[in-house]
Amino acid sequence: MKTYIECIACLVKQAVEISKLHIPKDSQDPFIRDVLVRISSMDYSKPPPVMAAEMYSMIKGLTGITDPYEEIKRYYNEKALTLYPELERLVADSEDPFETALRIAVAGNIIDFGIGTKDSIQIRATIETALKDRFAIDRIHELRQRLTDARLVLYLADNAGEIVFDRLFIEQIGAGRVVCAVRHAPIINDATLDDAEDAGLINVCRVISSGCTAPGTLLPLCSQEFKDIFESADVVVSKGQGNFETLNQSDRDIFFLFMTKCPVISREVGVPVGSFVSLHHDPGL
Amino acid sequence: MKTYIECIACLVKQAVEISKLHIPKDSQDPFIRDVLVRISSMDYSKPPPVMAAEMYSMIKGLTGITDPYEEIKRYYNEKALTLYPELERLVADSEDPFETALRIAVAGNIIDFGIGTKDSIQIRATIETALKDRFAIDRIHELRQRLTDARLVLYLADNAGEIVFDRLFIEQIGAGRVVCAVRHAPIINDATLDDAEDAGLINVCRVISSGCTAPGTLLPLCSQEFKDIFESADVVVSKGQGNFETLNQSDRDIFFLFMTKCPVISREVGVPVGSFVSLHHDPGL
Repeated sequence: MKTYIECIACLVKQAVEISKLHIPKDSQDPFIRDVLVRISSMDYSKPPPVMAAEMYSMIKGLTGITDPYEEIKRYYNEKALTLYPELERLVADSEDPFETALRIAVAGNIIDFGIGTKDSIQIRATIETALKDRFAIDRIHELRQRLTDARLVLYLADNAGEIVFDRLFIEQIGAGRVVCAVRHAPIINDATLDDAEDAGLINVCRVISSGCTAPGTLLPLCSQEFKDIFESADVVVSKGQGNFETLNQSDRDIFFLFMTKCPVISREVGVPVGSFVSLHHDPGL
Repeated sequence: MKTYIECIACLVKQAVEISKLHIPKDSQDPFIRDVLVRISSMDYSKPPPVMAAEMYSMIKGLTGITDPYEEIKRYYNEKALTLYPELERLVADSEDPFETALRIAVAGNIIDFGIGTKDSIQIRATIETALKDRFAIDRIHELRQRLTDARLVLYLADNAGEIVFDRLFIEQIGAGRVVCAVRHAPIINDATLDDAEDAGLINVCRVISSGCTAPGTLLPLCSQEFKDIFESADVVVSKGQGNFETLNQSDRDIFFLFMTKCPVISREVGVPVGSFVSLHHDPGL
């Protein structure tokens, strides 16, 4: 997906918020000036995560802080883990454990600090809504069918905390055939191998780094190992907006599961903001 | 007031919104790039309206549109005029017509397209709240006293629509001694001489242009006539955030009446967002 002008306003807002949190007061103005100049010359045909990655790398260079969201990620991994036993029972007791677990995994996508703030992230309420509401785009049936005889499933994770809920769904898919890919290094609150460990995901399925340090999956930046699995997997399940933004023009078919949390993505897929989406991107169609 | 980094994010957001409304699709990207470069090199010690003025003048240069908010301003002048008779009676019947009219005038400050959108602007509800709620900063008593023996009162208007409510308050002050100043040319939805005519304000008191084309009162850009009145007036009453941002470090004392509609201004005056404020700036204290 290209970077729209609305994304630029959002990137500047993120730059301002992150600099207030992590950059010394007298370096904030020069940092923002620098961000503005860089955004002014970026290639808008590239997806927004490219610029987000550059921005966070500037922060790293300025402050030496490699993981500004470390504490927040730990908080949400722990918070999600406290909900886990209850949700596990809910899935097991439900009429359709596969769909219940999928819905919970999509609800977990609310934990997104690229857009949300701690106050706006209501996990329990979002799960309740996701369990009963109609998906604005619903390819759950198609995904279920495709998974039936899949031998290798690549699962692209998105955020810390959210991956605890992904665990539930991965267990429903059949963890033995799932490879879950996380970001190569900390970026916003996206999940890394450390988070996969905190969330207990590494005990459930094979977890690899995608090799990508942007908040999405930019294939040219991904590791050869990842690219091989991406190409050979029978099914690719992709979580979150960042992965959608970077892969929605991919040559291969992908099932995108996410919540639409901004007007741009909502417009891109043609649904209202705040929708639950299971979308099948199929370039062969 | 200086331009804070939060103001920069807000300026970029405004640039994006205005360009979506008024700039042809293929000129939007270059326009935003240009805005980013200009904001990156602006003097942040100057108040935000300086940059806003530059941005709107860029739009004028690009599109030839001198008044993008013309229709919106007319709409709000008319809407406010339909409420006028009812509010006039309310003031006349109230125990304290001066304070009632002042509160209605402050509520009118909700009509601000620098920050709000048509959906977020709830005039009637805001008036109801302003009539009963405590002002977060309340210098109404002081203003009333200072007006008692004032011969010349300068009233700095802010937005179209809002000036209809100002009319009520100016009549309470005593229209014969009031000079009301409006912007020299259209900028956002700020009131100009045309709006003062539409709102019937010119039939009530003397209305002049301040000479300033920014959404505030930048004294170096103001006319000599305005500056003379600004200096010689016994009392200056200033409406809205834009006038506050550009005059809150003035050498003369000013009564600022406004609603705090953004976190930066709220922080600057130390009140929650959405507060009603009557603030006395007195450099002599």
